[in-house]
Amino acid sequence: MISKSQIKLITSLGQKKYRDKTGLFVAEGPKVILELLKAGFKLHMLFSSEVITEPSDNHYHISEADLKKISFLSTANTALAIFAIPAEVPLKESGWILVLDAVRDPGNLGTLIRLCDWFGIQQLVCSKDTTDCYNPKVVQATMGSISRVAVHYVALTSYLQNTTLPVIGACMEGTNAYQKTWSKEGILVLGNEANGISDPIMKLLQERVTIPQFGVKQETESLNVATAGAILLSEVRRSTEM
Amino acid sequence: MISKSQIKLITSLGQKKYRDKTGLFVAEGPKVILELLKAGFKLHMLFSSEVITEPSDNHYHISEADLKKISFLSTANTALAIFAIPAEVPLKESGWILVLDAVRDPGNLGTLIRLCDWFGIQQLVCSKDTTDCYNPKVVQATMGSISRVAVHYVALTSYLQNTTLPVIGACMEGTNAYQKTWSKEGILVLGNEANGISDPIMKLLQERVTIPQFGVKQETESLNVATAGAILLSEVRRSTEM
Repeated sequence: MISKSQIKLITSLGQKKYRDKTGLFVAEGPKVILELLKAGFKLHMLFSSEVITEPSDNHYHISEADLKKISFLSTANTALAIFAIPAEVPLKESGWILVLDAVRDPGNLGTLIRLCDWFGIQQLVCSKDTTDCYNPKVVQATMGSISRVAVHYVALTSYLQNTTLPVIGACMEGTNAYQKTWSKEGILVLGNEANGISDPIMKLLQERVTIPQFGVKQETESLNVATAGAILLSEVRRSTEM
Repeated sequence: MISKSQIKLITSLGQKKYRDKTGLFVAEGPKVILELLKAGFKLHMLFSSEVITEPSDNHYHISEADLKKISFLSTANTALAIFAIPAEVPLKESGWILVLDAVRDPGNLGTLIRLCDWFGIQQLVCSKDTTDCYNPKVVQATMGSISRVAVHYVALTSYLQNTTLPVIGACMEGTNAYQKTWSKEGILVLGNEANGISDPIMKLLQERVTIPQFGVKQETESLNVATAGAILLSEVRRSTEM
């Protein structure tokens, strides 16, 4: 059974202001939920139509019809959980860090978190106007990777002014990403879907890097931010680790 | 003004059976429409709330409210056009060809078409159960790239049995993509979002290739098909063209 107040709480967590107020977020599907549990995320409540983990007082067995009511997905999964948003860990000045300047699409942010996890990038730094990583659609798109990547929201200008790491931005014109000598540590900046990297951040880049275009016509306007991120993170690791 | 029968036609083109029956498809937004016109696609009708190209008899000026009614997007654009699906061009046995085995998500297919365009891959071959490339959501996600990439739907087993090009598949286990010697021509196969490459196609691969995972934990289950495609197409071009 699910109560009206529980439904109200879950629905409210679709909005950032209620996530901030309650310190809670929603995750859906056994796979994502089990990965968050395994990573030590604190479970607040679990609603499921089948048993996915050891029973406990805050687990509620509910019907598929009820799951449909509370799901944020177009096709509801067999489980939905509410977790506590973890306390922020300190941001370290080491390794490769991915920085996002106003990435807005939840699917893109989720894919980029999944990519960080794949390529062993443990820190993702976002401008304050980047989509919230605890948005249910982002959590879903990370496929559980959000449990292994620390996401920080910061005043980006000040952060980049104070870092000692080299700051490299993905732009339409710049050093050929395949010919660049990538260092062992650094910051890679990706910009907004429509406008790219904003002017104030552009001024703080030490280098601009670009993915070469191939073929006869070369009329493609740009790559999607998540695919550009995939290619550049791949280049960072290939050229420094292999 | 837009008539009831025009609205009915546009709505029907959201379904493949009506696209097949009429030989027409829908494209939205001035950018995509202008790229299709430039590429020589035959315009059937254009509906817009602002002038985007030279006036003609089959252009209809309509209100933003009417555009909202006919749009397939969550936020309607200022123009929607109906184009004729072009005649299929013969499939050539040369260069690099991307093959998709049952890719279902329209956003993934659109992103992969855009990637082909960026990396100068002119031929995309899809299994019959891959999403239709004239689905309005796919056309949108290509951002106009569909005008420059020839998409073929074929019986995949028979196609791969008869090709003379080397057939390489993206798998969870295989040759390290960064260490592989990529040939000048070949076929790269990507599989379904949930199940990867199907068994009958797996048997026809000459080689399996994999994108290495980095970091301490390496628990990411897999990469999204579009990001895996981005990284592998980038590797093909980097290692053979640079």
